[in-house]
Amino acid sequence: MQNQIPSSQEILEARSRINPYIHRTPVITSSLINRWVGNELFFKCENFQKAGAFKSRGAVNAILCLTPFQRELGVATHSSGNHAQALARAAQLFNIPAYVVMPNNAPKVKIAAVKDYGGLITFCEPTLEARESTLKRVIAKTGANEIHPYDNYSVIAGQATAAAELFEQAPLLDYLLCPVGGGGLLSGTALSSAYFSSKTKVIACEPAGADDAFRSFSSGKIVPSLHPKTIADGLLTSLGGRNFPIIIKYVFEVVTVSEEAIVDAMRLLYERAKIVVEPSSAVPLAALLENKISAKNSKIGIILSGGNVDLANLPF
Amino acid sequence: MQNQIPSSQEILEARSRINPYIHRTPVITSSLINRWVGNELFFKCENFQKAGAFKSRGAVNAILCLTPFQRELGVATHSSGNHAQALARAAQLFNIPAYVVMPNNAPKVKIAAVKDYGGLITFCEPTLEARESTLKRVIAKTGANEIHPYDNYSVIAGQATAAAELFEQAPLLDYLLCPVGGGGLLSGTALSSAYFSSKTKVIACEPAGADDAFRSFSSGKIVPSLHPKTIADGLLTSLGGRNFPIIIKYVFEVVTVSEEAIVDAMRLLYERAKIVVEPSSAVPLAALLENKISAKNSKIGIILSGGNVDLANLPF
Repeated sequence: MQNQIPSSQEILEARSRINPYIHRTPVITSSLINRWVGNELFFKCENFQKAGAFKSRGAVNAILCLTPFQRELGVATHSSGNHAQALARAAQLFNIPAYVVMPNNAPKVKIAAVKDYGGLITFCEPTLEARESTLKRVIAKTGANEIHPYDNYSVIAGQATAAAELFEQAPLLDYLLCPVGGGGLLSGTALSSAYFSSKTKVIACEPAGADDAFRSFSSGKIVPSLHPKTIADGLLTSLGGRNFPIIIKYVFEVVTVSEEAIVDAMRLLYERAKIVVEPSSAVPLAALLENKISAKNSKIGIILSGGNVDLANLPF
Repeated sequence: MQNQIPSSQEILEARSRINPYIHRTPVITSSLINRWVGNELFFKCENFQKAGAFKSRGAVNAILCLTPFQRELGVATHSSGNHAQALARAAQLFNIPAYVVMPNNAPKVKIAAVKDYGGLITFCEPTLEARESTLKRVIAKTGANEIHPYDNYSVIAGQATAAAELFEQAPLLDYLLCPVGGGGLLSGTALSSAYFSSKTKVIACEPAGADDAFRSFSSGKIVPSLHPKTIADGLLTSLGGRNFPIIIKYVFEVVTVSEEAIVDAMRLLYERAKIVVEPSSAVPLAALLENKISAKNSKIGIILSGGNVDLANLPF
């Protein structure tokens, strides 16, 4: 595992390391959406990524950064979201166990997805305390390596590869917009931008109903996410201790958006771009729709973080 | 306008003629869907096409095949579907009028889409007779050129370009699956296959609830589509007189599928491929899910015809 902020060389190494196991996802454009927002947008489609989200990048990189002896003992995490699926899939690739602690009220479809990838699930009460103590017990018993969803330098280096690819696919971006939850994707994106496209301003986009990153960025210290309320279920968590210093140093701005704008942006992506995204992915476009970003006629990259959505519960 | 079955040269000319005005759509794959159906599938994504469907190809080609004098008088059609939008958009590109006759019960969203593209709408009673007689009156008054949605050789040559592109993007296909309604896409696909990939077998896929193409193909003469009942709203019409002889000559087989399989296939494309398609697009994959095609470990192309769907009425 890496134990310091990934260098540009380490992000390049992560790219070639994970390359055989992930998709180089396409970048799509929509002339209609461009006209509506008055900018030229380049959507990096991590919704098309393996296991349906950028999380596969970090999960694969984290496993490949383990020593062969460590790797043999498997990996462990607590998660009810995309990281659980991505880690289970990555572990399956290398034929090692993935121990996943999930709250006993997790959606059946997410439980099934983790099982499909061969993940070994331990259920617990749906509290952070229960998740953490259950994970500790699982690790004590198995010796598995904890792979935190975002507060982990190997994971950050993996997530950084999405932006690194995008800078090749859509050069000379003025801005790069990225949703922020725990800050894994955002810190990786900010590092890649600093290293590979230093003129690009990285803007973090967050639901107003879960604005802990906005308040952390403004106050200079991590403000925990206490009672988040948003449709963007991937963006509920607090910033990680390894992520925050990178975000403070390299992110240009954090903006917040309304729930209505998130749903409007989501609908636009379905109706016009004809792609399936999860609500968290729509947050950056929502910021443009709400004029939270003062850019006109600019080239703007947007990372669409994932496409794992409950189709029976679309908000339109 | 072309007045005979398009030659290979004419399809190649159509390609370069329409090239500046349409998307060369991507081809996507899903290792999970491949595993489930036991074949290697290549989805040609016409849901990403301009105006959301392959229809833009035929509409643009038909307009570009008019003489400058004809073109000035504009184009006309009766349609409540994708052809109306595609024709209105194509006419707008060349700054000529598009007269569209629509039934007065057409969905508001489709009326709005045609208007967005500058189409000039005349409403009529929702019967085929009213649509045809209203169209005649519009044409008598304006001198506009009727562009039939499928029973038109320039339209067929335009639709043929989708398969022609696919054969470059995914060479050596054993099968090419295509939905069939009026037969515009199918006849064009069958011609391109005969000309550019003669070992590829073209299989037409049709809802069992609208199986006029199946019955026409079996009996050797056009059986009209009288009381079609299917979620695949793009496949309700009868085969065209110019389309049928091409289909009889070059199509290998017509298979029919259940409504349940169409919905299952649609859900699979949303959930696993993360793309938005309309029900008609899901019909070929439905045929594979229902084992209507006796292919294993084969390379199979599938044309996803479009993505214009009412998101508020998804069948899941």
